[in-house]
Amino acid sequence: MNVFVQRQHQLQQVMKVKGISGFLVNHNVDLYYYSGTMQTGYMFIPAAGEAVYFVRRSITRAEEEASCIIEPIGSMKTIKDRIAARYPELFHKVPGAAVSAAEGREAQEAQEVQEVLEDQPIKLATELDVLPVQQFQRLEAVFPGVVWEDGSQLVREQRMLKSPDEVAAIRRAAAVVDAALEAAIRHVHAGMAEFELMAFIEHQLRIQGHQGLMRMRAYNSELITGMVAAGASAAVPTYFDGPAGGQGLHPSSPQSSGRALIRRGEPILVDLGCCIDGYLIDQTRTLVIGELDQELQRAYEVAEQVLRATEARLQPGTISEHLYLLALDQVHEAGLSDHFMGYGADQVKFLGHGIGLEIDELPVLAKGFKTPLAPGMVIAIEPKFTYPGRGVVGVENSYLITEDGFEKLTISREGIIYVK
Amino acid sequence: MNVFVQRQHQLQQVMKVKGISGFLVNHNVDLYYYSGTMQTGYMFIPAAGEAVYFVRRSITRAEEEASCIIEPIGSMKTIKDRIAARYPELFHKVPGAAVSAAEGREAQEAQEVQEVLEDQPIKLATELDVLPVQQFQRLEAVFPGVVWEDGSQLVREQRMLKSPDEVAAIRRAAAVVDAALEAAIRHVHAGMAEFELMAFIEHQLRIQGHQGLMRMRAYNSELITGMVAAGASAAVPTYFDGPAGGQGLHPSSPQSSGRALIRRGEPILVDLGCCIDGYLIDQTRTLVIGELDQELQRAYEVAEQVLRATEARLQPGTISEHLYLLALDQVHEAGLSDHFMGYGADQVKFLGHGIGLEIDELPVLAKGFKTPLAPGMVIAIEPKFTYPGRGVVGVENSYLITEDGFEKLTISREGIIYVK
Repeated sequence: MNVFVQRQHQLQQVMKVKGISGFLVNHNVDLYYYSGTMQTGYMFIPAAGEAVYFVRRSITRAEEEASCIIEPIGSMKTIKDRIAARYPELFHKVPGAAVSAAEGREAQEAQEVQEVLEDQPIKLATELDVLPVQQFQRLEAVFPGVVWEDGSQLVREQRMLKSPDEVAAIRRAAAVVDAALEAAIRHVHAGMAEFELMAFIEHQLRIQGHQGLMRMRAYNSELITGMVAAGASAAVPTYFDGPAGGQGLHPSSPQSSGRALIRRGEPILVDLGCCIDGYLIDQTRTLVIGELDQELQRAYEVAEQVLRATEARLQPGTISEHLYLLALDQVHEAGLSDHFMGYGADQVKFLGHGIGLEIDELPVLAKGFKTPLAPGMVIAIEPKFTYPGRGVVGVENSYLITEDGFEKLTISREGIIYVK
Repeated sequence: MNVFVQRQHQLQQVMKVKGISGFLVNHNVDLYYYSGTMQTGYMFIPAAGEAVYFVRRSITRAEEEASCIIEPIGSMKTIKDRIAARYPELFHKVPGAAVSAAEGREAQEAQEVQEVLEDQPIKLATELDVLPVQQFQRLEAVFPGVVWEDGSQLVREQRMLKSPDEVAAIRRAAAVVDAALEAAIRHVHAGMAEFELMAFIEHQLRIQGHQGLMRMRAYNSELITGMVAAGASAAVPTYFDGPAGGQGLHPSSPQSSGRALIRRGEPILVDLGCCIDGYLIDQTRTLVIGELDQELQRAYEVAEQVLRATEARLQPGTISEHLYLLALDQVHEAGLSDHFMGYGADQVKFLGHGIGLEIDELPVLAKGFKTPLAPGMVIAIEPKFTYPGRGVVGVENSYLITEDGFEKLTISREGIIYVK
C-alpha cells in the first residue's frame, strides 16, 4: 500500500470516530497529499471504501499519477447521485431496504426506522479554512440535505505528523538552502541592494531544484522565497505574520527585500525557504560585513540561548505553548522583551511553526496551543530580535521530533556569520 | 483627489444603484486597489462617506500609505457597533428619529415606518469569490441581521478598466520582460534544462524589479513566473487553465518548466510574466535553436494570423466572445482545430484574458462573455497550437484598448525567433 492510500485510510479512521460519512477534499495541496496528483476537481474519500477523484483537468495526468479511482468530473449537478451510486450505504437511500424482511407491525416499525434514516442529514467534511464562499455555495446547491463539517483541522492534524518520505524531502530542501546560503556568503558585498542578493539566492535555489513556490495556507498570505533584509529596512513592520517584515519593492507587495543598499556593520537577516519535491524548509541566519555593535551581538547570543533552551525540551510530550512561554521568560530575564519577535505593537506572538507542504503548518509554538509534541512533527523555531532603525538579528532552525528528542534538519553553520 | 479615493467613489456610485449599504473589502489585492496599502484587516467603504480600514497589522505601515481612515481592528465582536457609530444612517438605528416631529395618529404611522426600517435587513457586500467559508462564518456571527451580497463581480468589473497610472506600470513590466527575453535569446543553448533557462530568466526579471509574485485570483491557481518549455514537455497537459502545461519539477507542482533538456529543432515556448509596481504583463514568444519543421512553422504563422485578425477587431464595442469565435473559425479553416489552445480533451476554451494586479482579470475572450470592449481594458491574447510529443508554438501580446482601437503594450519582436 503506498503512502497516499495509507493517508486515505488514516483519514477514514478519524472520520468514523467523528461520524463523518465522507470527505470532499477541495484544496490543491490536500488533493496532492491524499492522491499523489494535483488536478482541478474534488476528491471524495468515503468513511469506508476506495476514494475517487473527480477530475476536470487533466484526466490524462491524473490517471498517470493518482493513487485512487479517477472519474471525469462532468456536470456538478449529478455529482451527488454519482457518489450515492458508488457508495450506496452513505446516503441511506435504499427505499424499503429495512422493510423487506418484516411483516405487519414489525414492518411498520422498520418502515419508520427507514424514514428516520432517510431524513437524517448526511455529514460530509471539506476544508472550510480555504474554500471560497462562492464555491461552497455551489456545493451546498448540488448536495441538498448534506450537513457540511469543517474538516480542515483533521487534515492539518494529520499532515502535522510526517512520514520518513516527507522528512527526506525536507532534508533535501535543507541541503539546497545551505548551498545557496554559502554561495550568498561568498557573493555578498557592501553597496549591493537587498533585492539583488535575494535574486542571486533565488537563482541558486532554482538551479538546484527549488520549485519556485512557497505555499502558505492562511488567507491573503504570500511568501516570496523568504527575505534578505539589511539594517533598518529589516525592522520595517509589515502585515506578514512573522517576526521580521521588510520594506519590499512597492506598497503592492509590502514585505521581504527592498531597494536598500547593504552596508558594513549592520545585521543582514537571511531568512530562506525553498521547496523540493513539494516540501519546504525554513531557516534564518544573520550575516555581517565587518563588525556588529555589541548590543546587537548580545541580542543574537540571547537568540541562540533561546534556541538551546528550546532544544533541551524538544521531545515527545512537551506542550507546544510551553516552549513559547519558556522563551518569553528567558527573554524577559535578558531584558529584551520589547525587541522579541518584532517591536512594540508589531510583535508577533509565537516562537515557531510546523512546516511541510506549506510553511504555516501545525503545531504552532504559541500561547493557547496545547498540542503535545510527537514523533514525526517538523517545526521551524525562530527566535529573533528587532531594533527599529538598526535591524533584526536572530536564528532559525527546522527540527524533526524523534522518539527520544529531536534531530536538527537544518545543516547550515550557526553563530553570526562575519564576512570581510 | 488621489486615484485610491477616486476608486472608492466609483464603487460608491455602483453601490447606490445596487442598494448596497457598504462594502467590506477582504482580499489583499482589492484592499491595495482601494486603499493604497496592503495590511491584514478589512476596509469598510460605505455607500456614502469616507472609508475606514480596520487594520490588525501593521498600523504603522497603514498610516503611512493609506488613502482612507485607519482604525485598529481590535475585537471583531464590536466591529458592527463601531461601523454603526461611524455611519449611523446605515443601520437605521436611531430609535424614535422618525417619530419626533409627529403626534397622535401620524406619530403612530411614523413609529410603524421606523419599525419597518429597523427590521429591514442591511445589505453589505464582500468578495465571496475569494473569502474562505470559515472567515465568512465569523463575519456572519459578528454582523447579525446583515444580508451579504457577493461583491466580487463589481470589483472585478471596476478593476477591468485601467487608469493611466496602471497602464504605465504595465508598460514598465513589458520593458522588463522584453529585456529578460533578449537576455534569454543570447543565453539559451542546446543541452540546457528547461528549468535552468527559467531560473536564468527569473533572475533577469528580479534584478530589474520583478516583485517575485504572479498573482492569480482563481482558487487553487498558482503561477511560477510563467514557463519555459521545449518540445514534447511543453505539450504535457496540466490542471493549469492555460493553453500550454509543462511537465513541472514534481507532481506536487505539476506545471511550468521541468528537467527536460532543450534540443535543436524543437519549439521553445517562452511564456513570461513579471510584476512591476503591482502590475503584471503576460507575453509569449517561440524560440528555436536551428530550424523548425514546416508543419510547426505553419502553425506558428496561423497563430500570428489569428493575432492580426483579432487586432483588426480590437476596439471599443467589440463583444469579447466574438474575438474567440472569430479565432475558432480561422483555426477551423486552417484545419488546426484539434491543436488550438491545447490538444483534445485538454484544450482550454478561451483566446485571451484581462491582466492587471492579477493575471486572470476581466474581460475573458471566451464563449458566453458578452462584455463589449471599452477604452482602458488591458488584455493578453495568446493563440497557441499544441502538438503532443512535439511541442507548443504560439505568440502572446498584451494590448490596451484605446478610444479608437488598441495600443500594443508588448514590445518584444514577433515571429519565430531563431537562435544559432
